[in-house]
Amino acid sequence: MGSSKANAIVAQSGGPTAVINSSACGVIQEAMKSDAIERVLGATNGILGVLKEDLFDISAEREETIDALKRTPAAAIGSCRHKLKSLEESRADFERILEVFKAHNIRYFFYAGGNDSMDTADKVNKLAADSGYELVCIGVPKTIDNDLACTDHCPGYGSVAKYVATCAMEAGMDTESLYTYDTCTILEVMGRNAGWIAAATGLAAREPGEAPNLIYMPEAAFRWDKFVNDVKEVHKELGRVFIAVGEGLKDENGDYVTADSGSFGKDSFGHSQLGGVADMLKVVIEKEVGIKARWNKLGTNQRNAMHFASLTDVNEAYMCGQAAVKAAMGGVNGKMVTLVREDGPKYKCTTGLAELRDVANGEKKVPKEYINKAGNGITEACKDYIRPLIKGEAPVTVGEDGLAVFMRFERKPLEKKLPEYM
Amino acid sequence: MGSSKANAIVAQSGGPTAVINSSACGVIQEAMKSDAIERVLGATNGILGVLKEDLFDISAEREETIDALKRTPAAAIGSCRHKLKSLEESRADFERILEVFKAHNIRYFFYAGGNDSMDTADKVNKLAADSGYELVCIGVPKTIDNDLACTDHCPGYGSVAKYVATCAMEAGMDTESLYTYDTCTILEVMGRNAGWIAAATGLAAREPGEAPNLIYMPEAAFRWDKFVNDVKEVHKELGRVFIAVGEGLKDENGDYVTADSGSFGKDSFGHSQLGGVADMLKVVIEKEVGIKARWNKLGTNQRNAMHFASLTDVNEAYMCGQAAVKAAMGGVNGKMVTLVREDGPKYKCTTGLAELRDVANGEKKVPKEYINKAGNGITEACKDYIRPLIKGEAPVTVGEDGLAVFMRFERKPLEKKLPEYM
Repeated sequence: MGSSKANAIVAQSGGPTAVINSSACGVIQEAMKSDAIERVLGATNGILGVLKEDLFDISAEREETIDALKRTPAAAIGSCRHKLKSLEESRADFERILEVFKAHNIRYFFYAGGNDSMDTADKVNKLAADSGYELVCIGVPKTIDNDLACTDHCPGYGSVAKYVATCAMEAGMDTESLYTYDTCTILEVMGRNAGWIAAATGLAAREPGEAPNLIYMPEAAFRWDKFVNDVKEVHKELGRVFIAVGEGLKDENGDYVTADSGSFGKDSFGHSQLGGVADMLKVVIEKEVGIKARWNKLGTNQRNAMHFASLTDVNEAYMCGQAAVKAAMGGVNGKMVTLVREDGPKYKCTTGLAELRDVANGEKKVPKEYINKAGNGITEACKDYIRPLIKGEAPVTVGEDGLAVFMRFERKPLEKKLPEYM
Repeated sequence: MGSSKANAIVAQSGGPTAVINSSACGVIQEAMKSDAIERVLGATNGILGVLKEDLFDISAEREETIDALKRTPAAAIGSCRHKLKSLEESRADFERILEVFKAHNIRYFFYAGGNDSMDTADKVNKLAADSGYELVCIGVPKTIDNDLACTDHCPGYGSVAKYVATCAMEAGMDTESLYTYDTCTILEVMGRNAGWIAAATGLAAREPGEAPNLIYMPEAAFRWDKFVNDVKEVHKELGRVFIAVGEGLKDENGDYVTADSGSFGKDSFGHSQLGGVADMLKVVIEKEVGIKARWNKLGTNQRNAMHFASLTDVNEAYMCGQAAVKAAMGGVNGKMVTLVREDGPKYKCTTGLAELRDVANGEKKVPKEYINKAGNGITEACKDYIRPLIKGEAPVTVGEDGLAVFMRFERKPLEKKLPEYM
């Protein structure tokens, strides 16, 4: 690229987190320091924004706005779930991406997302190389699910872990208070394939008997008869039961636990899957154990809980963004930044790099040694792994009205130069 | 009672809140200062604990434990939903309560709860007077529902209001980020008869277009056709829709909105009421508006969110507890402490007193002037009413592990003196 400056683009993809904006902030602030980069552009709604040439000039935003990204949840640039297929099947889209990059002299592509996004970045990178367009693609890890390969953990996980553990603790105090009436509480958390979020609720139980008493993760095959027995046992011992469950619970065949899975499920209610897994557990508990059960489903609130986010997570997310730009400036291409946990008694985390395609093709589930033998809880090793990630409270700017103050971009749109995306 | 000292008892009733323990702390710390009171006793699990003579000596607890009540959610003494009927129907129970009080020289009864609890306290008080047992009964208001008569607002409401508004804001940022995929988000909050909690989510929308876009409360008769139209209009304007809904939504006949209410509801799914109102709205939106919808149900987490509670609420709850003891010492009996909002441009709140029976027989719903004409949002007058209640962030003790530290009583049980409760 010689000595002429080029533009960089930042895009966010998939489900928002409390800290994906902190990563964006790391990219933006580091990129704006670089002599090689003229302007930092944002792609409104991820790769969809690139395809639609819906870009805006982040460099033109106020410094305070950019800095407030560290304290703002969700995806401020805009996200999407637009999945590109193989280079052959989605060729027109991949070529369109390159055309947009060329039209706006974009030579650096920083993409924050999960494995699908790393796959997209990898393919854009390959097409650019094949067509002789100089482009640097660097991935920034992001997912509350913590299921990316090649990295010790994922930015976004520490904050969701801190929040769901807090929710388990607080709703657990409720169950302790009112067990004579609300005897059983079920906390449903996210995680369609990996149980990392459900596992994190286990940090709430500092002492035996504290909530959650039972944790069910997709990695431990779910059996209705065993479940009913677990609940009966805890109820007998404590007079109350607090259950944390990952939404993607699976049976011994690896199928999602739905209304049709197993005799307890099927007998208890005859409707197709409405509500979620917690609703099903409630029905079975009330029928088979004979105690009142209720449930909470945190939904998207768990992935945006900036008001009690992990400072460690916010800082590491920022570090990943910075490291992406530093890598790009250092001549790296086609890699994703990873988080590396250093050996030693004290937690220390640095960054590394992994091939985009290795991340794209991998998935990290909760390993066996992190799940207890009964398949209804986590081990000390699991707690040791998660604990450092939730430490510290991220600063929140609270307005005079008692509510958090979040930033929004002014979004000065870039003039479109290409025909409309079809 | 002359110059001899007597014991006081504190009991908590109904659904926990973030600040009912702060009220208990106010009662306990003030009572322990009083020359008239020998020991402060706790009734484990509310009136059930009294009936079962399941009492413990709070005065014997460590000072730090008692002080930490201010920073601990749920009902640390223990709560219940054991409802007593009329003096005639539940005569044996009411007499048992007095027997327990007599057996432990309890002359002061401080009862924190809602209108049912005030009813119970009133009847205990009457029976005591009839039977010539000197007893002072003072009620302490408590309910996240904010529906108690005679008081400007209820301790517990400010904190739930702050939390649900925060949740609306954060999940709203998520919807803004990902509307191309997750186009509509529904936040289901508590409130079976009153829409105060749903109303509070409206504080999140500082600017037009910000979440929540639509708020549905039990006080505004719900119509499926109007609802579908509301959602279509917001979607057309913004490309996304964020809805807050109180669980106790009612139709024009005052019946709860269930699967059987109205053609949209009935046509869309053929199962009996599983899940909640948000689940039903989702199904109707997907079918009738044709956009993807998802929902969050905060459940018991909203009433225990100590990690982001209102400092105003915590302080006022404490003040109510203190005022209850001061009133008792001042010769007041048969009253509940109320919160009184002083006139003037600056919010100032003091305490007053109301007859227990007036609170027992009343219910305060969201008034017409707080609901917009379309019945799908709140007015500025409503915001002005709620705003001061959520101000300030209550201090949280966070441990080195990044999670809140809550207190638990040691619970030194009092020796039982009576035959077992049947």
